[in-house]
This record gives sequence, C-alpha cells and structure tokens, in this order.
Amino acid sequence: MTQPVKIFLPEDRYFGPEAAQKWAAQQLYQTVADLPLICPHGHVDPRMFADPDYDLGSPTQLFITPDHYVFRMLYSQGIPLEQLGLSARQGPPAEIDQRKIWQTFADNFHLFRGTPTGMWLNHELRDVFGVTDKLSGATAMAIYDQISHCLAQPAFRPRALFERFKVEVLTTTDMATDTLTHHQAIQESDWGGRILPTFRPDNVFNLDTPDWRSQIETLSQVSGVTIHNYAGFIQAIEARRAFFKEMGATASDHSALTPYTETLSDREAEEIFQRGLQGQAGAEDVTRFTGHMLLETARMSLEDGLVMQLHVGSYRNHNQTIFARFGRDMGADIPTATEYTRNLAPLLNRFGNDPRLTLILFTLDETTYSRELAPLAGHYPILK
Amino acid sequence: MTQPVKIFLPEDRYFGPEAAQKWAAQQLYQTVADLPLICPHGHVDPRMFADPDYDLGSPTQLFITPDHYVFRMLYSQGIPLEQLGLSARQGPPAEIDQRKIWQTFADNFHLFRGTPTGMWLNHELRDVFGVTDKLSGATAMAIYDQISHCLAQPAFRPRALFERFKVEVLTTTDMATDTLTHHQAIQESDWGGRILPTFRPDNVFNLDTPDWRSQIETLSQVSGVTIHNYAGFIQAIEARRAFFKEMGATASDHSALTPYTETLSDREAEEIFQRGLQGQAGAEDVTRFTGHMLLETARMSLEDGLVMQLHVGSYRNHNQTIFARFGRDMGADIPTATEYTRNLAPLLNRFGNDPRLTLILFTLDETTYSRELAPLAGHYPILK
Amino acid sequence: MTQPVKIFLPEDRYFGPEAAQKWAAQQLYQTVADLPLICPHGHVDPRMFADPDYDLGSPTQLFITPDHYVFRMLYSQGIPLEQLGLSARQGPPAEIDQRKIWQTFADNFHLFRGTPTGMWLNHELRDVFGVTDKLSGATAMAIYDQISHCLAQPAFRPRALFERFKVEVLTTTDMATDTLTHHQAIQESDWGGRILPTFRPDNVFNLDTPDWRSQIETLSQVSGVTIHNYAGFIQAIEARRAFFKEMGATASDHSALTPYTETLSDREAEEIFQRGLQGQAGAEDVTRFTGHMLLETARMSLEDGLVMQLHVGSYRNHNQTIFARFGRDMGADIPTATEYTRNLAPLLNRFGNDPRLTLILFTLDETTYSRELAPLAGHYPILK
Repeated sequence: MTQPVKIFLPEDRYFGPEAAQKWAAQQLYQTVADLPLICPHGHVDPRMFADPDYDLGSPTQLFITPDHYVFRMLYSQGIPLEQLGLSARQGPPAEIDQRKIWQTFADNFHLFRGTPTGMWLNHELRDVFGVTDKLSGATAMAIYDQISHCLAQPAFRPRALFERFKVEVLTTTDMATDTLTHHQAIQESDWGGRILPTFRPDNVFNLDTPDWRSQIETLSQVSGVTIHNYAGFIQAIEARRAFFKEMGATASDHSALTPYTETLSDREAEEIFQRGLQGQAGAEDVTRFTGHMLLETARMSLEDGLVMQLHVGSYRNHNQTIFARFGRDMGADIPTATEYTRNLAPLLNRFGNDPRLTLILFTLDETTYSRELAPLAGHYPILK
Repeated sequence: MTQPVKIFLPEDRYFGPEAAQKWAAQQLYQTVADLPLICPHGHVDPRMFADPDYDLGSPTQLFITPDHYVFRMLYSQGIPLEQLGLSARQGPPAEIDQRKIWQTFADNFHLFRGTPTGMWLNHELRDVFGVTDKLSGATAMAIYDQISHCLAQPAFRPRALFERFKVEVLTTTDMATDTLTHHQAIQESDWGGRILPTFRPDNVFNLDTPDWRSQIETLSQVSGVTIHNYAGFIQAIEARRAFFKEMGATASDHSALTPYTETLSDREAEEIFQRGLQGQAGAEDVTRFTGHMLLETARMSLEDGLVMQLHVGSYRNHNQTIFARFGRDMGADIPTATEYTRNLAPLLNRFGNDPRLTLILFTLDETTYSRELAPLAGHYPILK
Repeated sequence: MTQPVKIFLPEDRYFGPEAAQKWAAQQLYQTVADLPLICPHGHVDPRMFADPDYDLGSPTQLFITPDHYVFRMLYSQGIPLEQLGLSARQGPPAEIDQRKIWQTFADNFHLFRGTPTGMWLNHELRDVFGVTDKLSGATAMAIYDQISHCLAQPAFRPRALFERFKVEVLTTTDMATDTLTHHQAIQESDWGGRILPTFRPDNVFNLDTPDWRSQIETLSQVSGVTIHNYAGFIQAIEARRAFFKEMGATASDHSALTPYTETLSDREAEEIFQRGLQGQAGAEDVTRFTGHMLLETARMSLEDGLVMQLHVGSYRNHNQTIFARFGRDMGADIPTATEYTRNLAPLLNRFGNDPRLTLILFTLDETTYSRELAPLAGHYPILK
C-alpha cells in the first residue's frame, strides 16, 4: 500500500517567491501573527454563538453545502449540485448521505489545487482538525471520521473555537429588519465574546428586492414607525440604526450593482417611494433611489458615527437557471467593470470633506485600485 | 573584420527571472517539451498540404510579405509597405526584388529586439534553418542564401516540416462557403497528416460584410439550399456544419466586435434577414443578428458536438487609408475594452448549464481575465 | 538623547527586487546616469530664470505650499489646508508662520513612507540640500535652518541649480494667450540656459473654460487678429503657433477629459463657435469643438512641425468644495477609465500615416498600455 501524501502548507505560502520580498514580508508578518483577531466584516450566523451548545453538524454540512466557493467550482466541472447535497425547488431529490457527498468532494479535491479555496480548505483541515494526510478518494472516509470525532467535542463548539482562534471581536451582517434576538441572547449570556451586528439595509433600499413591499411592512413593525411615505421610511431607518448602534453596531454595509450616487429632492424621493409602494418603480427609479439612500446613509453616519461600507460591482444571480432552481447565493455572482470617479462625485462632494464620516469601499475590479480608488483615497479625508 | 554576433536564445527565455519560479517552470516544461503538437486553432492554408510539392517560395515570401506582425512594425517605424513588397491598389509599384526586401528587413531587424515577434523570428532562423549569426545588414545576404538553400530541399516541403515538428493534428480556419477541396485532396492522398477544417461563418453571420449578399448566394450554391429567408439560411448553415463535420471539423470559430448575445424571435430574425437581403440592414440590425447567430451556433453545437470558439474585441481595419490601399489583415486591427458579464448572459442562461457544449473564449483585454472570465469559467460548466 | 535616524536612499531604490533584473537595470542606468537632462515636458515658471536673482523663498514655500502632491495627502489624513499655509477665498485665515507649517509637515512626514512623493522629497533633502537626518518632528527646525541657509546662497538661485543639475534644455507650459515676456527676457539675457515655451491652448479650445469669452478677447489682442468667427479663431491660433515657434517652441500640449476626436465641417465649426461667443454652447458642443480642434492641431503640426502632446483622462476639480474655496490644481484631479481605439480613429485616419507629425499620448489609465496604446503605436508611424 502506498504511503498517503501529506498536506503541504509551508509557512511562507502566502508570500511571493522573490527572496528579498519574502524576507521582508515574513518580518512584517511576525509582528502581527500572534495578535488577537478583529473581524470587522463577516457573514457568520449569530445563532452559532447564542446557543452555547450549537452543533456545527457533519463535515459535509460544515465544509461543502454552505460554501458556494466549493460547490460552484465542482459544478463548473460537471458535478450536479444535487449530488453535493443541494436541493432544487423541483427535480430529483438531493443526495442526503453525508458520507457519499464527502466522498464526491474528496474524489474531486485535486481540482482545488492552486486555488485560494484549496489553500484555505487545507489550512482548516490541518490546523483546525489536525488532519495530516491529503484529502483524496482514498483518504476520504478516514478524514471524515477524524473531523466528525472533533466536531463531537466541546472544544469544537463555536464559542470554544472563537476563543481558540483568539477573536477579539466579530461582526455579523444583519438585515435592517432583523430583530437581533441572537445578539441579545449573546449579550445577556455569561459568555464574554464580542459579537456585534452590522446594519445592512439592501432589502429596503433596493426597490427591486422581490418582496420589497413586504420588507417595508416588516420594517414598519420592527421600527414601530408606520411607513406610508418617504419621510416615514427615513424615520424608520433612523430608528433601526439607533437600535443597531445600541446593540453594539459600529458600521452599516451596502451592496449595489454600481456606486451611482445622486441627491434627490424630497419631492422626487417621495414620488419614487410611492411608485415603489404601488409596485410601479422602473429600473431608473431603482438606480436613483439606491443612489439617493447611499447619500442619506452618509448623512446619518455623520450624526450617529457608524462607519459606512460599500460593496459594488457584482452582477447577482447571473445564472438564471440556477437562481430559479436553487435560489440566491449559489456562486453565480459575477464581477463587472466599475466606475468610481464619476459615480461617487455627488456623495464625496457633499460629505467627503467631513472627517466625522468614514467610508470603506470594496471593489471586484482590480483595475480601479491605482486608477480611481487610490487617488480618491489620497484626496478625501473620509475614504479608506 | 568583426566576428558576427550569434543569435542568443537561452533555453529559459520564456520563463520569468525569479529563480524558484523559473526552476518550477522548467520542470513543468520538461514534462511536455517532447510531446507531439496538437494545434486546435490555426490559420495555415490547407493548399500547402494538398500539394506534396508545395514550394514555400523565397525567404522574403516566407518571412515578410505574409506576416502583418513583421511589416506593420516596420511600417510604424516609417518604412513604406511597398518597400516591403506589398502592392497597393493604386500608387507606386511594390518592390519585387526579393533580396532587396530582405536587406531592408535585415537592416531594421534590431527594431524587433525584445518583442515576441523578434524572439519567434530568431527561433525560426536558428532552429528551423540552422542560422547561427544574428540577422543584420551585414549578414543579410549570407542568411538569405542559407534559407534559400534549405527551401529548395524536399525536407522543407510543408508535409516534411509537419512531420519534423511532430504535429499530431492541425486545424485550419475556413469560411462557411468553402468547398474544402484542399482538405478533400489531403484526405484522398496517401499522406497521413491530420489537417482538419474549422467552420468560420463570419462572412455570412455579419450583415455588414461588404459583399454579404453575394456570400449568401455562394452559400446557397455550396449548401444546395435556396436561401430566400431566415429559415433557409439556418438550414444552409446546418447543412454546412454537417459537411464540415463529415470532413473532420471539431469546432466552429466566430469573430465579433463585442460578445453581445441576444435571442431574437423567429419573426425578428426574419425581418432583419430580409433587410439584409435588401441591403437595408442598419448598425443595430448587424449587432443583433450576429448576437442571435451566436446563440443559434450554441444551439447547433448541442446537437452536432462542435466546440464553439469566440474571438471578440478587435476593431478591424482601424487605419482606413491602409485598408483602402492594401485591403484587410494589414496589422491595423486594434483591441478594445471588452465586457463579458452582461453580454454573454443571454447565451449562458440558455446553454451555459448544458455540459454537451464547450465554449472557448479568446480575449484581447487582459483586465477581463480575473474580473470576468475566470469567475464565469468558475461557474458555468461549458466555459473553457 | 537618541541618535537621529538617517535618510535611507539606496542607489537601487527604483529597481525591482529580483536580482537578475536589478543587475540589468543598473547596467542600463549607468550608461545614462551622467548624461545631461533633456526635459521636454515641464511646469516650471519661466519667471524663475528671467530674473537672475530669483529667490525660491522659505523651505515651506519651496516644498509645501506649491506642491499639491504634498498638501493633498496631508489633507486626506485630516490636516486642514489652511494649516499648511493655503488661503481659502473665505473662512479662517491661513497659517503664515513658515516654521509652524514646516513643523506640521515634519510631524506628519512618516505618512509619506513608501510613496513616490516621500522618495522624491528625501532625494531633494539629501542630494540637493545635504540633509542627512530623517525629517521628523524632532529634526524639523534644524533641517528648516539648513535649507534656509542653502537657499540664501547664490548657488541655490534657479539658474545655478539648472546648471548644477546639468539640464540641457527645459520646456515650460504656456497658455495660447501668453506673451512669453519671461522667455524673451531669458533669451535677451547673457545667460545661456535653454528654456523653451510650449503652446497649450486649452483655455481657448475648451468652450467650457469659465472665462472663455474673455480668453478669446485676449487671444485677439495678443495675436493681432480680430476674432469674430471661427475662421478668425483659426487664423489667431496659427499666428500664436508661429510666434511660439519663433520663440523656440518645439511642441504643443493639450488636455481633455477624453481623447474624442471629430472632423467638423466649416459650417458646423462656425455654428458651434458662434454659440460659444453667445455663451450658449452646450456640453455636446464643448466635446465636439475640442475634438475638432485636436484634428486642426494635427493639421497645423504637419505644416509647422510642432510635436503634438495629448493628456487625457483626468476628471478636474472633483472636490467642488475645495475648488470653490481654494481654486483649481489642489490635488483633486482624479483619473478615469479612458478609451483610445475608437476616440482617436478620426485623427489617426486623417493624419496617422504622415511621418511629418509626431503625436505623444499620455495616459492615467494603465490598462490601456498593452490593450490600446502599444497596438496603436505599433501600427501608426506618428504615435510615440
């Protein structure tokens, strides 16, 4: 029998090959390697920390089914999503045998060679679960058993891992309509981990959210503000921000296809909002209203101090077949070229010189770093 | 007399300078360096292989006059194309003295230093023709004689070079209206080299092809389908694909200014096609019809299994003066920024999940690799 | 007391870290390091050389207040421009204590670490002024004194520095309406330094120049051509080019938001020009007229031999608050994505094949180098 191949993860794996640069990078890394982690932008479910006994499930449920970076790549190589345990709205039932799904994953693990996902998975396997053999068809079941064994231990409950990883603070991403009950439970518990909410109002800012009107109703309920016009909407948003801030939030987070910003007059905002309520908002209304609400968010940030985060450039649900069958967040969000200089001018002209605001821009278009983002950040005090 | 300088072509010339990366690159290269060549995309004239005694002509006719990478660069440095042997429709006659053209080329060969063209030319000179001195004004005639001497030998007939280069298969690019007589001759000969046609229907898909209507007539004749409407056109295309496939074709190849795709209704397609037949197709008709025919091509590929190749982003015949005087393919095709995410959505939504299709995208815009092409290929099973 | 840190400027600081490349770069650099400087594009005020006793002022007036690369970066980190000695039209008076401003600069000098500005400032401090200690809050005043002491010496007058730096020729940038009196004074002096003007007509080509009509009046006066129509405008421009050429100019220089070019008929040009004179030119008029004048400039260049330089892609005065308070050129010009292939086609089609013209393109969009600019320059004889 062949000796199984070991996971190969040299310490310098994330540094470039040039010797002088690698040396400098390693020196810098050593100065921060052992610091506690501050995680200001995350998508972890707060429920994991609300329940002290939260169970992370099977290795398959931990590594494969919730991670679209994993399953979309396997899908692109011809493996049906159902075979990876994902259920379509219609059609053949998904595989439910956790070991069988893991075996499929392991049989194809070589496809992740040289990818960030592959490096990350190997890091988790070795450094979190103590796996030393490379994952493959042959080692699949032994590794499954080893991870299962770990996950059954108290040391692998989310709170224990939070402490083991030396996380100082972790923020989640929460809809504007979220009641933050899990955050409340964490805060009222005797556990000391800092899990903070982040205010993400996309579902009520973007008029083309499929169930926008019902989201507005929910917003009315949770905010206690009856929303029948734009003024009420703003009042409700301000109330929610105040509540999130009270619950520890330090930032808001916003997603849009482009960084388009525009100041609407109160009357224009009202007219568009009413068209939204009547289900008659057009594509231009959607763009203008989101652009206006980004400006309103900057205004509110000046007052309440929440950092503003903006993610743009992702064309959501590009694969309509997958969207129709499996829903959103299935790995079919594809980047687009993005323009910042013109689009952000209205926002930066109104608020860019006020150091009370901090605006963090994320991009999926690397060509904008040196062309637009660095020059903007090298001029406006608010940009990071 | 000075000792002539030798051609300098170190073995590692195509690898980056960093030592660790170069070592890895060389290890990988050694594993494939001696394999036979499979050339799935080429522009070699099949006539070369149909005639066992095909003569490649003079060194000038081999290296200079057919290669727009060579003459366009010399042109950009102020050397008239006529001086390089290219004939304009009007104006002064082109130089016909083969040695004189070669001398001009050699006098200016230093201009190719550090260019891919220069490295390729040196490779051909040394490894194919055994030239060891660097090409220059002083060495021009001796090198011309040496190449001429080679070209007179049977070992330098195309079929012999095909075997010497260990080409396993070579595909050509052939218009939808091509009768493939040269391919037929090759197949009926006693020579065993595999030369396969590729179906390239640009001349009939792009309504703004200058002589589109006469191309359609030719298509009628070669397909045996009388084309007086869109349905007949589709039928003729399908007949040609069947014939190309019968002749060994494994792929189609398509060129367009942008990767715009759109599904037209049969009625829309018919209306645009009729406007084309009447010489009244506008710019929008051209774009929409090409975009629609790309979708139709994907549909046909599902049925006949031909791989689909798409080249986009080249602004053809940018220099209208050169185009008017010398015609097309004179090195004046200039790249443009290209958008794939939105443009390909219609095609990928209809066919992107069907593993029977393989779509190969070529780009001239390097910024799209990481931003659009890799994410698309990392999601859709058909993309390569 | 701690030993002050020394300025660290290794000889190889501008070369990449890879050893083989660095060696080659250094070999190449040594072949040119001691050559005289030819500076074909600069923004130095010719007044500095017209007056043999021109005083460069305080260290603060030399290094900080005229350099938007310096003050805009400090501004982006929260330091008000007034604190750096810049006066707003309204509001609190600017700091005038030169030492206090220098101290602020020195206190924040660490912010320039790893930036081109920081490397340049250190080079000036050490190699021009002999400063060896790193600039910081602690060393600020001693370094201020050292620079002040230098600036008081005759060896630090502009003419002396010009000679010390071995500048062979330096060109300035001058408006089309400039009378070039300083250049005249230099030429009539007994000093032999070559300071040449460059013809920059943006203020009369761009119809949206705020005081365009008064610029046209000035152009009338300095050219001696009464301008009441487009033909007179062209005549005046040609007269100014002739005058600039007589004064030694070898080039014109042009700035535009995009490289859009278009040939207008004489009638169209006249109509747009008249709308400009009546203050009624719209945004489209502005774009088309500038695009047309670029073509006219190419035409004139064929006749008078001036090299044509084109700068595009900068969105001027992005920060309207800064513009309203401090005026233009305050570091708020932000790059935009730029398209050359289509935009330059009209100009290149008319003049691109005529080797009498030289066109130099500058870009702020690095993605265009390999995609558009290199292919264009590798085809058209005029492009550099």
